[in-house]
Amino acid sequence: MPKKANHPPEESLGLERIVFFSDAVMAIAITLLAIDIRVPEIEPALAVAELPAQLAAITPNLLTFFISFIVIGIYWISHHRYFSYIKRYDTRLMLLNLMFLFFIACMPFVASLLGRFPSVPIALVTYTLAVAALGISMALIWRYASNNYRLIEPNLDTGTIRTINIRLFVAPLMFLVALPFAFVSTLAVIVVWWLSPLAVILATRLLTRK
Amino acid sequence: MPKKANHPPEESLGLERIVFFSDAVMAIAITLLAIDIRVPEIEPALAVAELPAQLAAITPNLLTFFISFIVIGIYWISHHRYFSYIKRYDTRLMLLNLMFLFFIACMPFVASLLGRFPSVPIALVTYTLAVAALGISMALIWRYASNNYRLIEPNLDTGTIRTINIRLFVAPLMFLVALPFAFVSTLAVIVVWWLSPLAVILATRLLTRK
Amino acid sequence: MPKKANHPPEESLGLERIVFFSDAVMAIAITLLAIDIRVPEIEPALAVAELPAQLAAITPNLLTFFISFIVIGIYWISHHRYFSYIKRYDTRLMLLNLMFLFFIACMPFVASLLGRFPSVPIALVTYTLAVAALGISMALIWRYASNNYRLIEPNLDTGTIRTINIRLFVAPLMFLVALPFAFVSTLAVIVVWWLSPLAVILATRLLTRK
Amino acid sequence: MPKKANHPPEESLGLERIVFFSDAVMAIAITLLAIDIRVPEIEPALAVAELPAQLAAITPNLLTFFISFIVIGIYWISHHRYFSYIKRYDTRLMLLNLMFLFFIACMPFVASLLGRFPSVPIALVTYTLAVAALGISMALIWRYASNNYRLIEPNLDTGTIRTINIRLFVAPLMFLVALPFAFVSTLAVIVVWWLSPLAVILATRLLTRK
Repeated sequence: MPKKANHPPEESLGLERIVFFSDAVMAIAITLLAIDIRVPEIEPALAVAELPAQLAAITPNLLTFFISFIVIGIYWISHHRYFSYIKRYDTRLMLLNLMFLFFIACMPFVASLLGRFPSVPIALVTYTLAVAALGISMALIWRYASNNYRLIEPNLDTGTIRTINIRLFVAPLMFLVALPFAFVSTLAVIVVWWLSPLAVILATRLLTRK
Repeated sequence: MPKKANHPPEESLGLERIVFFSDAVMAIAITLLAIDIRVPEIEPALAVAELPAQLAAITPNLLTFFISFIVIGIYWISHHRYFSYIKRYDTRLMLLNLMFLFFIACMPFVASLLGRFPSVPIALVTYTLAVAALGISMALIWRYASNNYRLIEPNLDTGTIRTINIRLFVAPLMFLVALPFAFVSTLAVIVVWWLSPLAVILATRLLTRK
Repeated sequence: MPKKANHPPEESLGLERIVFFSDAVMAIAITLLAIDIRVPEIEPALAVAELPAQLAAITPNLLTFFISFIVIGIYWISHHRYFSYIKRYDTRLMLLNLMFLFFIACMPFVASLLGRFPSVPIALVTYTLAVAALGISMALIWRYASNNYRLIEPNLDTGTIRTINIRLFVAPLMFLVALPFAFVSTLAVIVVWWLSPLAVILATRLLTRK
Repeated sequence: MPKKANHPPEESLGLERIVFFSDAVMAIAITLLAIDIRVPEIEPALAVAELPAQLAAITPNLLTFFISFIVIGIYWISHHRYFSYIKRYDTRLMLLNLMFLFFIACMPFVASLLGRFPSVPIALVTYTLAVAALGISMALIWRYASNNYRLIEPNLDTGTIRTINIRLFVAPLMFLVALPFAFVSTLAVIVVWWLSPLAVILATRLLTRK
């Protein structure tokens, strides 16, 4: 049953504006990811001969752009899905959402850092921490909104709420698990990242078993 | 008749948010195209004498900006038109749409590459592939949504659905046909590009004849 | 009385999406204007002593940012006001609107050019032409939409329609009148610009007298 | 009781578009804040050894990004909250709102300036003035809209209106109070900034006492 929040929940137009603002920030960040990929500077006379090699040299930037696009894309889908259950809002939800958007706004910088220095541990660690923080923010939004049905629709069953909670916390945890591998190799980190969907599925199955 | 999708189709507010997010990404990409055009760096004392020549030197950048603006503009009109027939959504549609937006987000980079190196084959090939991939994504969105009336409105006649399918696949095919010309000359590629609307009209006439 | 357009006028959701896309492009262009203002590069030890002079040196950039913000702001208000009368749309309106957005997207570049070379005739001419083209696009949108009540609401009186037509064409004309002054001095051009609201008021009075 | 404005208040769709445009500008400015943080340029061979120190060197940029994100975030919440009371609009409200958005658009530049020169008085003064101007614009919007219930909903009690007025003017005043400290030390300025929420609470208590 819905419990009263500290700040009185307000009308749906206000909620739409929060969702809209978030969409705009995510749209900008996802599009700016590619802006940082610098076109190589080559003298015109040498361009035909040297451009292929120069483009090959920015492959890490292109890969990081691709991975970061997927990261923001997945969190946009998450935000889209879980906010469809949220029916009211208060100032704390707005602040948690701003925290989420802060880490979205960090993505172009950390992606650019990783693209430039793909095998430097501190670049990998920074990137991993930013993605983990993004995931934790989304998890906190859901935890706050769903706790005691504070801001979500009252018809949602407790099983679904719990499954979402698990999913949202396991994903960033996997990113943190990848952290020590940053000092081994970039490849190891990426392998752990790709395992995270598996971990999410496994954890959901184990923890929601009746 | 509408067939049930893997993921249950959801309400119209969610669809609006998908359309909104896409509009925002397209608006950002189309505006960022011009950002990459660098103002020439000239010493103040020489500016009056040298600026005209320096501006003439960035003509390829201005042309690529103009062509890319038209490309994104046309695909925005397409997206606008075909999403007006789409009435439901599922996760796969969201992923296909993200694929479309990925190639939209690539446009400023590939346009910048072509603007800087207009006669280097690899720059032309990269640009052509990006535009073709954009077109194929739009075609896949329509194919997925319209197949068995999965997500579109049930009143649309099959002739219209088929015509849209042909149109959306022929345009990117023409861009791929232009690919080998990249190794001949930039002009040849551009001529083939301009023929693509003709090819679309021809193909539509030939393939939809009763 | 409304006349039938070539393309059948469509529903209001589609119109909303056109307005939304335009707002997004204008919002991005108006915010990107300031991005181009480069923070001076000074060695830390000399920063306290040299920063004031270096900031003074970028005054033209700040002024151009300010003027361009007003230009886009005024055209945003125009777009907001005149689209509130437009109730239907067709493909031609979308293309005219894309033309308007093209010149909006050009503003950051031409503003940056003028900010860097405020007293070079070609920079002044380019800027003036871009602003005039922006105004002419807005005027063409109105002319197309209001002609024979093609797309506007049928209750609007003919006097208002005519006044808007005059207003929208006189403003860019004044910018074109300023063009020859570009070869005299920057100040002369700016004076003519500031006279354009006066010209708009005068022309409206003279041409709409009964 | 609502008083008639110079310009006739218009319908709610127009108001939505104003709010939307403002959200888009704020979303872009808040995301662009991070774009200016430059990834260090280091030769690949030295990257592992030098990157940590180089990242430490851009700490002021990261801090300014963080502070500016909070500033725009807080004003977005303000704009969201107070515009929910505004039910009509006129041209003057649009112009005041454009003034507010002008200072929003200035934030990436002034933040970048402060991030690069955190201990140079003129950079601190510029930043402080921009934030104060932002706050004063928001206060003027409220003052204009709420004066004699010009544009706000008629049911709002006068106490709430007055409290908002005080809050919105005290915050930028505190930023101006911080101004002379710019010539003492950066830390002193930041301390005064952090005191501003306290000042807002105190002033609200003192001035709204019955």
